[in-house]
Amino acid sequence: MDTSNTPELSALVDTAGLGLSAVVAGLRTSREVTNKIRYRGEIRELPSREAMHKLLQHLQAALFPTHYGHTDLSDETIDYFVGSQLNTGLSILKEQVRRSLYFSSDLQEDAPLREQAARITRDFAHQLPAVRDVLVSDIQAAYHGDPAASSISEILLCYPGTTAIIYHRLAHALHQLGAPLLARLIADIAHSATGIDIHPAAQIGPSFFIDHGTGVVIGETTIIGRNVRLYQAVTLGAKRFPQEPDGSLVKGIPRHPIVEDDVVVYAGATLLGRITIGRGSVIGGNVWLTHSVPAGSNVSQAEMLSDCRQP
Amino acid sequence: MDTSNTPELSALVDTAGLGLSAVVAGLRTSREVTNKIRYRGEIRELPSREAMHKLLQHLQAALFPTHYGHTDLSDETIDYFVGSQLNTGLSILKEQVRRSLYFSSDLQEDAPLREQAARITRDFAHQLPAVRDVLVSDIQAAYHGDPAASSISEILLCYPGTTAIIYHRLAHALHQLGAPLLARLIADIAHSATGIDIHPAAQIGPSFFIDHGTGVVIGETTIIGRNVRLYQAVTLGAKRFPQEPDGSLVKGIPRHPIVEDDVVVYAGATLLGRITIGRGSVIGGNVWLTHSVPAGSNVSQAEMLSDCRQP
Amino acid sequence: MDTSNTPELSALVDTAGLGLSAVVAGLRTSREVTNKIRYRGEIRELPSREAMHKLLQHLQAALFPTHYGHTDLSDETIDYFVGSQLNTGLSILKEQVRRSLYFSSDLQEDAPLREQAARITRDFAHQLPAVRDVLVSDIQAAYHGDPAASSISEILLCYPGTTAIIYHRLAHALHQLGAPLLARLIADIAHSATGIDIHPAAQIGPSFFIDHGTGVVIGETTIIGRNVRLYQAVTLGAKRFPQEPDGSLVKGIPRHPIVEDDVVVYAGATLLGRITIGRGSVIGGNVWLTHSVPAGSNVSQAEMLSDCRQP
Amino acid sequence: MDTSNTPELSALVDTAGLGLSAVVAGLRTSREVTNKIRYRGEIRELPSREAMHKLLQHLQAALFPTHYGHTDLSDETIDYFVGSQLNTGLSILKEQVRRSLYFSSDLQEDAPLREQAARITRDFAHQLPAVRDVLVSDIQAAYHGDPAASSISEILLCYPGTTAIIYHRLAHALHQLGAPLLARLIADIAHSATGIDIHPAAQIGPSFFIDHGTGVVIGETTIIGRNVRLYQAVTLGAKRFPQEPDGSLVKGIPRHPIVEDDVVVYAGATLLGRITIGRGSVIGGNVWLTHSVPAGSNVSQAEMLSDCRQP
Amino acid sequence: MDTSNTPELSALVDTAGLGLSAVVAGLRTSREVTNKIRYRGEIRELPSREAMHKLLQHLQAALFPTHYGHTDLSDETIDYFVGSQLNTGLSILKEQVRRSLYFSSDLQEDAPLREQAARITRDFAHQLPAVRDVLVSDIQAAYHGDPAASSISEILLCYPGTTAIIYHRLAHALHQLGAPLLARLIADIAHSATGIDIHPAAQIGPSFFIDHGTGVVIGETTIIGRNVRLYQAVTLGAKRFPQEPDGSLVKGIPRHPIVEDDVVVYAGATLLGRITIGRGSVIGGNVWLTHSVPAGSNVSQAEMLSDCRQP
Amino acid sequence: MDTSNTPELSALVDTAGLGLSAVVAGLRTSREVTNKIRYRGEIRELPSREAMHKLLQHLQAALFPTHYGHTDLSDETIDYFVGSQLNTGLSILKEQVRRSLYFSSDLQEDAPLREQAARITRDFAHQLPAVRDVLVSDIQAAYHGDPAASSISEILLCYPGTTAIIYHRLAHALHQLGAPLLARLIADIAHSATGIDIHPAAQIGPSFFIDHGTGVVIGETTIIGRNVRLYQAVTLGAKRFPQEPDGSLVKGIPRHPIVEDDVVVYAGATLLGRITIGRGSVIGGNVWLTHSVPAGSNVSQAEMLSDCRQP
Repeated sequence: MDTSNTPELSALVDTAGLGLSAVVAGLRTSREVTNKIRYRGEIRELPSREAMHKLLQHLQAALFPTHYGHTDLSDETIDYFVGSQLNTGLSILKEQVRRSLYFSSDLQEDAPLREQAARITRDFAHQLPAVRDVLVSDIQAAYHGDPAASSISEILLCYPGTTAIIYHRLAHALHQLGAPLLARLIADIAHSATGIDIHPAAQIGPSFFIDHGTGVVIGETTIIGRNVRLYQAVTLGAKRFPQEPDGSLVKGIPRHPIVEDDVVVYAGATLLGRITIGRGSVIGGNVWLTHSVPAGSNVSQAEMLSDCRQP
Repeated sequence: MDTSNTPELSALVDTAGLGLSAVVAGLRTSREVTNKIRYRGEIRELPSREAMHKLLQHLQAALFPTHYGHTDLSDETIDYFVGSQLNTGLSILKEQVRRSLYFSSDLQEDAPLREQAARITRDFAHQLPAVRDVLVSDIQAAYHGDPAASSISEILLCYPGTTAIIYHRLAHALHQLGAPLLARLIADIAHSATGIDIHPAAQIGPSFFIDHGTGVVIGETTIIGRNVRLYQAVTLGAKRFPQEPDGSLVKGIPRHPIVEDDVVVYAGATLLGRITIGRGSVIGGNVWLTHSVPAGSNVSQAEMLSDCRQP
Repeated sequence: MDTSNTPELSALVDTAGLGLSAVVAGLRTSREVTNKIRYRGEIRELPSREAMHKLLQHLQAALFPTHYGHTDLSDETIDYFVGSQLNTGLSILKEQVRRSLYFSSDLQEDAPLREQAARITRDFAHQLPAVRDVLVSDIQAAYHGDPAASSISEILLCYPGTTAIIYHRLAHALHQLGAPLLARLIADIAHSATGIDIHPAAQIGPSFFIDHGTGVVIGETTIIGRNVRLYQAVTLGAKRFPQEPDGSLVKGIPRHPIVEDDVVVYAGATLLGRITIGRGSVIGGNVWLTHSVPAGSNVSQAEMLSDCRQP
Repeated sequence: MDTSNTPELSALVDTAGLGLSAVVAGLRTSREVTNKIRYRGEIRELPSREAMHKLLQHLQAALFPTHYGHTDLSDETIDYFVGSQLNTGLSILKEQVRRSLYFSSDLQEDAPLREQAARITRDFAHQLPAVRDVLVSDIQAAYHGDPAASSISEILLCYPGTTAIIYHRLAHALHQLGAPLLARLIADIAHSATGIDIHPAAQIGPSFFIDHGTGVVIGETTIIGRNVRLYQAVTLGAKRFPQEPDGSLVKGIPRHPIVEDDVVVYAGATLLGRITIGRGSVIGGNVWLTHSVPAGSNVSQAEMLSDCRQP
Repeated sequence: MDTSNTPELSALVDTAGLGLSAVVAGLRTSREVTNKIRYRGEIRELPSREAMHKLLQHLQAALFPTHYGHTDLSDETIDYFVGSQLNTGLSILKEQVRRSLYFSSDLQEDAPLREQAARITRDFAHQLPAVRDVLVSDIQAAYHGDPAASSISEILLCYPGTTAIIYHRLAHALHQLGAPLLARLIADIAHSATGIDIHPAAQIGPSFFIDHGTGVVIGETTIIGRNVRLYQAVTLGAKRFPQEPDGSLVKGIPRHPIVEDDVVVYAGATLLGRITIGRGSVIGGNVWLTHSVPAGSNVSQAEMLSDCRQP
Repeated sequence: MDTSNTPELSALVDTAGLGLSAVVAGLRTSREVTNKIRYRGEIRELPSREAMHKLLQHLQAALFPTHYGHTDLSDETIDYFVGSQLNTGLSILKEQVRRSLYFSSDLQEDAPLREQAARITRDFAHQLPAVRDVLVSDIQAAYHGDPAASSISEILLCYPGTTAIIYHRLAHALHQLGAPLLARLIADIAHSATGIDIHPAAQIGPSFFIDHGTGVVIGETTIIGRNVRLYQAVTLGAKRFPQEPDGSLVKGIPRHPIVEDDVVVYAGATLLGRITIGRGSVIGGNVWLTHSVPAGSNVSQAEMLSDCRQP
């Protein structure tokens, strides 16, 4: 083809350039060095953070349609809206569950994983009304627990603790149903938005309220009763971790606190290890606690320092 | 749960409303009446116009990266860009082919259709360099055929005929490979953007140029040679359709013109039926032609009217 | 406030510049000259083309949910989807109707216009099932009328005539209910997407099919019967317009054709004035017709030229 | 680095694959064959269709702020809105003009082209008030010329002819100022949206109205007077093109009609060559005209056929 | 309508499914149980977090146009930009204020609330120049207070404390003007972005700087003087809350610290209750302080522990 | 132009309004007061936070393509994807570096800054493979250091510490290469997403892991060895800052801790000043440390309190 008189079909030039191919090759080498073990067979797709984000928006809209969905819903239209949000959200969820199962499974066959994903999604869907009931108790606990709160809507729209507990209860349900990676993704989305870091395996009773919340950490094996209130920077953590003989950390053993009903833990308190905080106790701000306390205890930094003062 | 003091969790009201449920029921009835025959088994997903739109953008960027892709590509980077556009585009295509196969197939099994979709996609990919070569001939034909054209880039960026022929050549390849529904979708996207309506089954030789283009119609069984030029509102159509004994139209028989090499057809000309326009002919504007003409013919309305004038 | 040591809070400079203020002033003058008459009182918001676009997407999804909505709907979920699409679409419509009423009304009060907008929206909603029934007849007419059509889905997804008739039937309903400006907006959206220009006031019977379609024009007072088929570039137009004594054109009088049942009009035919095309007639391509023809007529350019030939 | 116990850092697998590298190489070969001549030196960026789209939206909003911009502007706020739209639009334009100049220039230095781009942009800006005045005359012509038009707003919001003439007057200004490639881009954007194809070099007087418009073509050297009205599918085109001795088409010579003041051209008429349509003439539908007609002519197909009838 | 030969208009199937209707019904029950009290009459729309997000972007762009708006503004264009940002932002604000008023009001009439919303919006707008002046003092305080700061632009673009104080001053203005729910929404948006939690009712003097900031909590009734500097994780909080006879918390009473001019509070310090930190005091890191200290105090954990050491 | 019968071209009205021009003028005054010193000459564009956001997404996708990029990459396609991500990302980076250089430079000429920006970008690109190698060591450290971690993918997808260290290593490279403002922007983006605040100048060795992370602050001159683990709310900060004679803070001197290899610092510990934490030390939760400790130290709050108890 004679193209001598078609001057500018492409205007590319030899520029000195970035040496891009060397960088691409370097990254390939880096990947190969760090990937000695590879899956054989099909490519395994990973769950998508963006998809989980969308899922959460659909679920929030289905749970509290007038606050997180459309604001112009009527009795006549609300069920259509809720059903449609669920339909879209659950179809996202089913695909993400499938990916997470596929990723962590040794199975080569697709069909059983699809069935399992469908079952988990269905079970999750049927837990949603109960999850909503508990969330309503949490929102009421916030209303009663914060003297600055002036309405339920303010709590739904403006409290980071609300986002944290909604996301946790959804993540926990997924964790229990066998989708732990998705549960962790939700927990990290909540953490990024609120500064509140709750492991999805943590068990939390109804009427739970976290005020302010930044810096709160609630560990994997924590158990929290009914009507518990936490403030910012409270840690329910593990003490130093037991090691396996080979030096690696022992995984999965109970190592976080049990907090019984009606406990309040003020800001900055650190509760470490498998200790029990007895029913109705009040743990003061900045307290550092590594032993159990009986029901009705009132632990404050002042007392700890006064222990110090009068030996 | 006593919620008597949580006033505004939901602000819904009984409004007179739209009677939405009656409309939903009415639409359901309408669907049921018109859907006597239903597929049993799985839901069959339809191809998506939006996905085909994206596919076309990726393919155009892969074919002409400096005009339809990034404008800041260098020799060093261009292959990465092209490869990445192809990768994304072809993975969209594979899914859409799968859907279109599944839709039109009686097969209940997924695996063979996936394999067929992969094969069609691969074959399509390997035709792209040859498709590009032919498109370059089309663009050069435009440059030489339009006295108003001042550069190749103007033809790539500003000519509806360019869009029409790029989309047609891609659609035609898919049509030949066994994805006719996707091919039709591409043709309709081109039609909507340019006013040029080319059936994807039409066979068109290299160095083809349509100027202005609005209203051009090129039918399913049309055959066009090399170096043909058309103007706006040209129809290469069928005459009245033969009917089956039951009154329905006979489908698939050759019924559109054969246009040989080096023919020019001016604006508004209507060429109908399985006629042959001989090599090198010129068909004047608004001419209405339902019989073949030999090579080198020069048909104009004036002559037809003069025929009329001097019977 | 001493800011002498905060160097770069703003990096603005006196550039020679565009003389923007002169342009703004010039445009203000242009607006003022052309706006001698102004509304007193509140600003009147205009309907939004973008909102009407969204409305059409929601309505199409509600009418044909598996083709224009989600493709993964099941019997269990489809009504939620349809209801939700309607809810969103109709709430857009209500606001746009309100704006269009407000715009064309002399009323200063808001409440009656809101009520009227709600009533028009409700009436429109309740017409949708019947509109869908007629659209199904149109789609079947396309399937039977085009030998290249291979499936109903192809007609729904790939035919510009489908878009044109769906949008027209929706626009016509709004026109009849008292929202003519919105109806015109829909008609123009359809025109831009398909090249088919149907005035929303035109009355069109069931089983209507336009093939290819680019350049079709159907005027305001046209009446079309059942089972009519048109091809591209057909005009159902007015002849020269009668003028008022002051030279302005007389508006609103019947001036476009009546096309009876079972008529076919081939490409490029021009039918002008309040003529009647009798039932079952066939009007050939490029025919120019300004007088009525009886039922069963078969009018072709050839005949007209032969008229010419044998005077 | 020992990574033997980090199993899934990457889940890639050797799939049979698409043979993508062969396709990329094939496309590279195709590009190299067609690009014998290359620019040396810097990469030259091409103007962007998407940027021109945005530019047009900003300019339309600046020209008719209540129709194409915000609908809630008041006397107090409108100049801020207009100034801000201009600022954004003109800064897009300046960059696109720079690219188009750079592209078509032999200059290697950046600074003079930037200055030239700034000057063209500034001159364009200062023409906008006058452009708006002429557009207002066009809109009034539409209101007076279409018996179906019921308000000025309907013409601004719903008429394809309005879009076509706004875009043309902007494109023409750019063409005159020395940015012909950008002007062509605007013309093609208008063509795609409306089916109306006006070359940006065409000269069109005030009070111009195109009704319906699909298929209208107005060629490069056309000259149109005041108060002219066209209908759909009108062509103001060239006759067959004179050729250079080498067979290529002669570019740039006057070859399209001159249409004087107060002319009406009805649908489908084709006017070809450097003919003059005298002031106040009426050209009937479907007329094919290749010679000049004096002022006050009334040309109709009927007459042409009657000429034919009575030779 | 006989549709027996139109096979695939809908491809829906009876799948086993999710049991979606049971979930929708369960969620409806959950809503009904928790919503004993309902508003009668119209639906009350809630303020939108997304709208407040956009509002903040427009206001930031209006306050610091070269940093948060366009970067290519000149003296000639900047006022148009600022005016346009204000216009868009304030029109969003007016609607959101209206919703928040309507939500918290017993009024059934719309007009007075619209007027009140307009008045609040106007008053807010006229405070913006003064708000900007104070913000400039805050930014200068950051520049002087952080040895790592190298430019004012770095502080505007990269410091979470900057976002926190800009949003707080805007939220505080809205709180004072009678839009407390919107103010809380802004505070929570700031909290989520920065980890800094300032109640919008808190009163903060000029030249305020928070470094790093994560975990800072400033309570509702806090009063902060001029030229105060805080570090991360500082709490200005309440001690345990007094209860009403019925056990609920007493709302609204002064319960947070008063911090006088020129005070520095280092990271992790906790200041609780209605105490006064005298002018020019320095509070050391991690200090726990529940009593007032006089002007010029220098409180450090070391001293507190040394108190403990030498009883 | 007589427009008396074109009623509604603009529907603007004199409303009472916002007094917007007074606000615009007030903001202008505020800007002028605070901008005594201005750059002469061209407008200097600031780096864009949004552009840096996109850059980070492209770089993450290039570094870990299966986790942050597409999930359907094969060996065949991955290098195209990586190369394309790098190409887009680095071209964003080059422009942002140019802006940051221009902003902080006294140079009036553009060319040397463009060259410097290209050089910094190229050098940065060539560091990416090494940066990836170190990041892999960090991810492995997380896997080994957190008993709750169940897979490498979980760490890549769900751990805020992963985001923080990826962004830090990229920011640190830019800081070292001479683009400190961009480095700070990246650090603040990481801070906002994770609550972890690492100054880009901080030097951090391989195999670094931060668990939970909210509230961690790592100062400008910090030096961290290999295999160090931090928990939430750890501060590696400066003590009170030395002042210049004029009262301003001395900038740039080493003032943050040196943390040697194999150190663990538990949650809430505060390490201040240019102290050295000897190799292998363990610093307990909430410890307040302002002096160096030798290798192998084990510092806990309990011990500090016991010091207090037994003077």
